[in-house]
Amino acid sequence: MNPECAALSVRQALAQDQGLEKILVRGWVRARRDASGFSFLEINDGSCLGNLQALVEENSPAGAALPSARNGAAVAITGALLPSPGRGQRWELRAAELSVLGEAEQSAYPLQKKRHSDEFLRGLAHLRPRTNKYGAALRLRSEAAFALHSFFRGQGFHYVHTPILTGLDCEGAGEMFRVQAGDFFDRPCNLTVSGQLEAEALALALGRVYAFGPTFRAENSNTPRHAAEFWMLEPEAAFFDLEDDMRLAEEMLRFTARHVLEHCGPELELFSRHLDEGLPERTRRLLEGPYPRISYAEAVQILTSSRRSFSFPARFGADLQTEHERFLAEEYFQGPVLVYDYPKEIKAFYMRANPDGRTVAAMDMLVPRVGELIGGSRREERLDKLEQRLEELGRAKEDYQWYLDLRRFGSAPHAGFGLGFERLLMLLSGISNIRDVTAFPRVPGSLEF
Amino acid sequence: MNPECAALSVRQALAQDQGLEKILVRGWVRARRDASGFSFLEINDGSCLGNLQALVEENSPAGAALPSARNGAAVAITGALLPSPGRGQRWELRAAELSVLGEAEQSAYPLQKKRHSDEFLRGLAHLRPRTNKYGAALRLRSEAAFALHSFFRGQGFHYVHTPILTGLDCEGAGEMFRVQAGDFFDRPCNLTVSGQLEAEALALALGRVYAFGPTFRAENSNTPRHAAEFWMLEPEAAFFDLEDDMRLAEEMLRFTARHVLEHCGPELELFSRHLDEGLPERTRRLLEGPYPRISYAEAVQILTSSRRSFSFPARFGADLQTEHERFLAEEYFQGPVLVYDYPKEIKAFYMRANPDGRTVAAMDMLVPRVGELIGGSRREERLDKLEQRLEELGRAKEDYQWYLDLRRFGSAPHAGFGLGFERLLMLLSGISNIRDVTAFPRVPGSLEF
Repeated sequence: MNPECAALSVRQALAQDQGLEKILVRGWVRARRDASGFSFLEINDGSCLGNLQALVEENSPAGAALPSARNGAAVAITGALLPSPGRGQRWELRAAELSVLGEAEQSAYPLQKKRHSDEFLRGLAHLRPRTNKYGAALRLRSEAAFALHSFFRGQGFHYVHTPILTGLDCEGAGEMFRVQAGDFFDRPCNLTVSGQLEAEALALALGRVYAFGPTFRAENSNTPRHAAEFWMLEPEAAFFDLEDDMRLAEEMLRFTARHVLEHCGPELELFSRHLDEGLPERTRRLLEGPYPRISYAEAVQILTSSRRSFSFPARFGADLQTEHERFLAEEYFQGPVLVYDYPKEIKAFYMRANPDGRTVAAMDMLVPRVGELIGGSRREERLDKLEQRLEELGRAKEDYQWYLDLRRFGSAPHAGFGLGFERLLMLLSGISNIRDVTAFPRVPGSLEF
Repeated sequence: MNPECAALSVRQALAQDQGLEKILVRGWVRARRDASGFSFLEINDGSCLGNLQALVEENSPAGAALPSARNGAAVAITGALLPSPGRGQRWELRAAELSVLGEAEQSAYPLQKKRHSDEFLRGLAHLRPRTNKYGAALRLRSEAAFALHSFFRGQGFHYVHTPILTGLDCEGAGEMFRVQAGDFFDRPCNLTVSGQLEAEALALALGRVYAFGPTFRAENSNTPRHAAEFWMLEPEAAFFDLEDDMRLAEEMLRFTARHVLEHCGPELELFSRHLDEGLPERTRRLLEGPYPRISYAEAVQILTSSRRSFSFPARFGADLQTEHERFLAEEYFQGPVLVYDYPKEIKAFYMRANPDGRTVAAMDMLVPRVGELIGGSRREERLDKLEQRLEELGRAKEDYQWYLDLRRFGSAPHAGFGLGFERLLMLLSGISNIRDVTAFPRVPGSLEF
């Protein structure tokens, strides 16, 4: 192997403007076709969805390694990058040297060329990123995360890391896992369900912040939309009202959709072709705006007059069910919709009381296929109202001293939201199970890998 | 308050090219000076280190709110942005309207204008981001994180999220916290100490990946450099050898240092002035290159011939202590240094055996003030060698089946490293305690907030 020539990724090779006399490409054999006297190897290195086709002649120095260069093998090839006479590809690599870095014994290798079920591949979480679909999902994930960082930084938000280990046992967002920490800490330790309370402290100092990190739910729900561990993005901004909050959520989603359209074209095309033909149209709707906004009362009105029979009839005071959320987003509005002003009883203690005495300044963004994508609110910044609410709920004020301090000293209106990152990926990809947009999903019974 | 005029952040206001007739600025009073007939309020909103000075006349409509606009209060001010006649600032805000959104009762507000000790402020983790030093540390943290994302994306790395909850109880990097998950999972559950093993699976599919997320250590070490929860950045790349790995680490550090110099100028100046006058020179050294590279054997040689008396004498086969690492980086090389080829006994099971039979292809980057900043290696990609090493260490192969699969099917040379993100921040800021570069640090005994 000549170390002097340029090593290119498949992505770089495919993007060349002109041929190159000698390059080095390393990757894995995704497919192989044998003809008389030569073989075609489809090389993928994970840099992009596409493969680079390598032509290896049997009776060349490269040919000697052909017998072990089978499906799944890691190979290094030097050769010339030349225009391909075949259809569907611009370049091919004429191999001068071929070495097999790691074989894949065919009888044992679980990733055969046939199409595997999602279920089967979940049992191979360490290998499935080598398939087109899962590789594409992970590249989409990477680009969507970068889009979010770029968006918030551009809006003057600082990226903060809120703690995973927490002494609070109610953060208002779900059941918690307990950590066996012995006497390491001075109180019982749980895994966070939300970084919001800490993000509020930071927003009331830094103005605009967002947390992006893993969060946990100990709820034993075996659904395609729930996981025990998932990533959440939580912006929090001082001096924001609910209107600002909804605008931020909408602009964030539009920015992210535009970014992945620009940077993940082949991946999105793959998803449209194989998973969800409605994807391009749905993504197009994300780019439009403004998204419709209705109050919770209006949402209930729409649902009750829809003549649709739901498993849980909608009524004022009850939480919207996924079936309701999807009806609103998929059928009624056929795109994202923002619902605001929910009854206080079904929302968390920290949400700001509206003047009507029965609703809070909360908002959810509902989207097709997923239902609730985003949940946010103004936070109760008035000390007396917040203390009163804690009392109504029978919570000890003593447990929230530092949180109440934020209202004692320089309190200011503020708002924020939480975005379930995996749900965003489901929306953008058309992948319908949270287990398939996460590299190593944590759901009941599943802790291998 | 007139909602029609433009709301500007302090950062935006200070960056104006020309005065503005009417703007709205919201933030907190950081300081106040009263003169006869008027007051100066220094307004900070967290968008930057600098304050915007507001001039409020007592006998104006704005003056009515002056009595409660004290240190720490949240305020909204409309007025004209005009050239400041005072020294040290270009602009000042002549208040037309002033409203106090949230007072801070002076007798109770813990952040007085005097200088507080780090120790005291650690007990006020929810309020200390409102001080110059901690606000600056958190803005630096945000920019450093963005620099890392930009760097790795630019190098063709995909951002991946490796799981926090893990069924492995030895990932080779330290003691683990156990999670009380009952029968939620099918095996005991721990908090990860490293995402590396999973990142390897992803690198052998996607080529180049990096994880960036929280990791945990249950070690009860009360030092300025250790925390129970900290963020780690872990790149992993297929087809990389140790040389590539060291080059990547070096380029990453240089890129990040350059980025924060460009984007956190005032913050770095604050740190130089108040914390560490050697900071500019140390940062300058990071920008130079290439960093010196020495083998572990050479490092031991330098240490033993240094005539320095260490608490732990250096000898071949023993791990380098922090005192050794700092001597090498601070005194001997006076800048970052890469040490490679460590004895296998003191390194993790997955590191690649060198042909000499006694060392492994590992590398650490040592830096002034911090000691070990980065630890990396080539990974053992040869199935037989890896199995043999597990056996030598008395580990059950069955526990590493999926990890061994990566060597059974399409194995390829690969390498990666781990960067302790907080240590990077300590290096870049001169802040000497990990508790002060983390918003809500988790160390023994500390789980409040």
